[in-house]
Amino acid sequence: MIRTPKGFLAAGAACGIRTAGRADVGVLVSAVPAACSAAFTSSLLRSHSITVSERHLRAAGAVRCILANSGCANTATGPAGLRDTERVCAAAAQELGVRPDETLIASTGVIGEPLPADRMIQGVRLALKDIRDGAADYQSFARAIMTTDTKPKLVADTFRADGTSASVVCAAKGAGMIGPDLRPHATMLVFFVTDAAVRPAALHRAMAGAVVPEFNAFSIDADMSPNDTVFLAANGMSGMAPVAGGAGYRAFGDCLRAVSRAVVGLLLADGEGVTRVVTLVVHGCRADDALRIARTIASSPLVKTAINGADPNWGRFLSAACRSGVRFDVGRVDMSIGPHRVVRRGATTLVPDRLVREVMLRRAYTVTLDIRRDRGVPPVVFRTTDLSKEYVRINAEYKT
Amino acid sequence: MIRTPKGFLAAGAACGIRTAGRADVGVLVSAVPAACSAAFTSSLLRSHSITVSERHLRAAGAVRCILANSGCANTATGPAGLRDTERVCAAAAQELGVRPDETLIASTGVIGEPLPADRMIQGVRLALKDIRDGAADYQSFARAIMTTDTKPKLVADTFRADGTSASVVCAAKGAGMIGPDLRPHATMLVFFVTDAAVRPAALHRAMAGAVVPEFNAFSIDADMSPNDTVFLAANGMSGMAPVAGGAGYRAFGDCLRAVSRAVVGLLLADGEGVTRVVTLVVHGCRADDALRIARTIASSPLVKTAINGADPNWGRFLSAACRSGVRFDVGRVDMSIGPHRVVRRGATTLVPDRLVREVMLRRAYTVTLDIRRDRGVPPVVFRTTDLSKEYVRINAEYKT
Repeated sequence: MIRTPKGFLAAGAACGIRTAGRADVGVLVSAVPAACSAAFTSSLLRSHSITVSERHLRAAGAVRCILANSGCANTATGPAGLRDTERVCAAAAQELGVRPDETLIASTGVIGEPLPADRMIQGVRLALKDIRDGAADYQSFARAIMTTDTKPKLVADTFRADGTSASVVCAAKGAGMIGPDLRPHATMLVFFVTDAAVRPAALHRAMAGAVVPEFNAFSIDADMSPNDTVFLAANGMSGMAPVAGGAGYRAFGDCLRAVSRAVVGLLLADGEGVTRVVTLVVHGCRADDALRIARTIASSPLVKTAINGADPNWGRFLSAACRSGVRFDVGRVDMSIGPHRVVRRGATTLVPDRLVREVMLRRAYTVTLDIRRDRGVPPVVFRTTDLSKEYVRINAEYKT
Repeated sequence: MIRTPKGFLAAGAACGIRTAGRADVGVLVSAVPAACSAAFTSSLLRSHSITVSERHLRAAGAVRCILANSGCANTATGPAGLRDTERVCAAAAQELGVRPDETLIASTGVIGEPLPADRMIQGVRLALKDIRDGAADYQSFARAIMTTDTKPKLVADTFRADGTSASVVCAAKGAGMIGPDLRPHATMLVFFVTDAAVRPAALHRAMAGAVVPEFNAFSIDADMSPNDTVFLAANGMSGMAPVAGGAGYRAFGDCLRAVSRAVVGLLLADGEGVTRVVTLVVHGCRADDALRIARTIASSPLVKTAINGADPNWGRFLSAACRSGVRFDVGRVDMSIGPHRVVRRGATTLVPDRLVREVMLRRAYTVTLDIRRDRGVPPVVFRTTDLSKEYVRINAEYKT
């Protein structure tokens, strides 16, 4: 049993947005108004759920309720879709006796299909009833937001400073259409709740500093979704109040970073058709360039199929780095697959394929690229997956 | 039987770079020095073959012989690799009695494996013997450069003006690692030869205006290769001499464009694991932005798997366009799959999935996107393919 934040309750229910009988609506409720920071997709295409959540966050500055649904992206359905989204939020707010703009919403599923608002409202009522009856739990919330995920993703942690402590829980979903580029920076839905008391400005800084960089440092298929959402809500009910600059705030940041990393690990491991996870480490060039190189490698079909087959065709990694658009001297580049230095100064070291393949047969390994262009810069770490026949099967049949 | 340019002969031979007994070396010889224009990959990683060809083109300004090999990319093998490449060219030149820098070379295959230069020299000698013996033909050249291609690609055409005529032949290969971005602009190897007399400056302009745009307007897997090469050689032996601005030059350009389009069609149809080809037409925005949108759609794994399964999940096309980085108002965008307008002003028109699926079950169809941002701009046309389990199988086992 995980220790969950005081005053935050979660539940899930089935209302028929997806397959009949499958949980598809989740509700998170705070007993008191919570400060909230959010990060959304940087796609021009945005779910109505994001539009409405942003509007509500600006208006209310605090949140009492977060709704989530699977089975419908609530995207590209015009003005009627926007009105329906507001109607769902208003119904939840009325049920709870809070203001409509204290309600946020996140959606995942097929783009271009209208949200069945009446059904969703029924689902929200069912979930809220479970909360009132004490039958609520985070597992059922985490299950309700799954799409092609095969497992619910839930990570909990506790942080301490100065004799006080608070807890953090993060529920997340996402197995495909995962190539997040969040702004202040996935369909990745991520919900952090904590009972620490954190002021909005400090919460935004924690989001930008400790959460967003972790979620922008991985990719399953590089396909950023119009629905990617991360919420971080803090209701203060633990009594612990981390203040920016203090030990409590540092502990809060460390905790968020650790939880984010663990959640990203869960998302990667359960990615569509994923059989292997590769950690790319890019040294020797500025963070933005290093990230661009890493993303290009991470999204190359040839790299991803080589990872899948444990094919020691390491030239594909080097080739992808060199078409990233970042300028550097290939003649200075070193590259390693696991412990084997396969490229030195831009040229093969003639490591036998057999040794490289041994590494690539593992479920997880590291590929290190040293660009040797900029000095004194920290390495960038980016995680990616293979591209399997199973990924193709899942996505060739998604809607049919 | 195709009409081939006067004075250009082609042959292929087997020398064991690839599997024993498989043709893997091709030779193209001009009876007289030919003007030549070239376009190469814009990757930072470049095959030694490209480095040497560029050097020779600059030094000689004319070409007598073009060598090509499959089975080895001749890339990332350090200074020894560069020396070996020069040695192969020098051996061919000596055999033919021409200057070494009148010899060009192009390679395709695995990156990071040293070119077996002695074997290749043997192969070149065998091919040149066939040319001397009259046993040469373009088919055997086109076969020798194949890698995962299942068919040789050869297109021939003739153009006329002012009572004279000349012919063009193009041999090409490439089925994977195909996402060309050539500079003035695959491993795509493309060899044009013509017996028209075209001065170098006019030849470069024809390359930049009629050939490069066609080869930059398609993608199989978006993975630009360090070996992509297009050569366009003109030896003048037809006696027809198109002059920039004249009717003959226009006819030459039209012929090059038509041959390029036909060759791209062959490359797409024979792409690794390809079952469907989709033509993307992007209206209403500047060419560079339209191309960026098209390339993002063309390289989206979710779009490509939907194409594979004929899954009417058109939201994936719209979503990819909206994460391309190009700024536009989604609320103005229209999109059609075949004849069906599925998006009007950014929102679904609720076309039944069944109708969209009927179109998507075809081997070839068109997806039209109207951004409605810029006026008076011509549409950009870009062709792409599906992503199939077969693509994954081919590339997960490429080297092993």
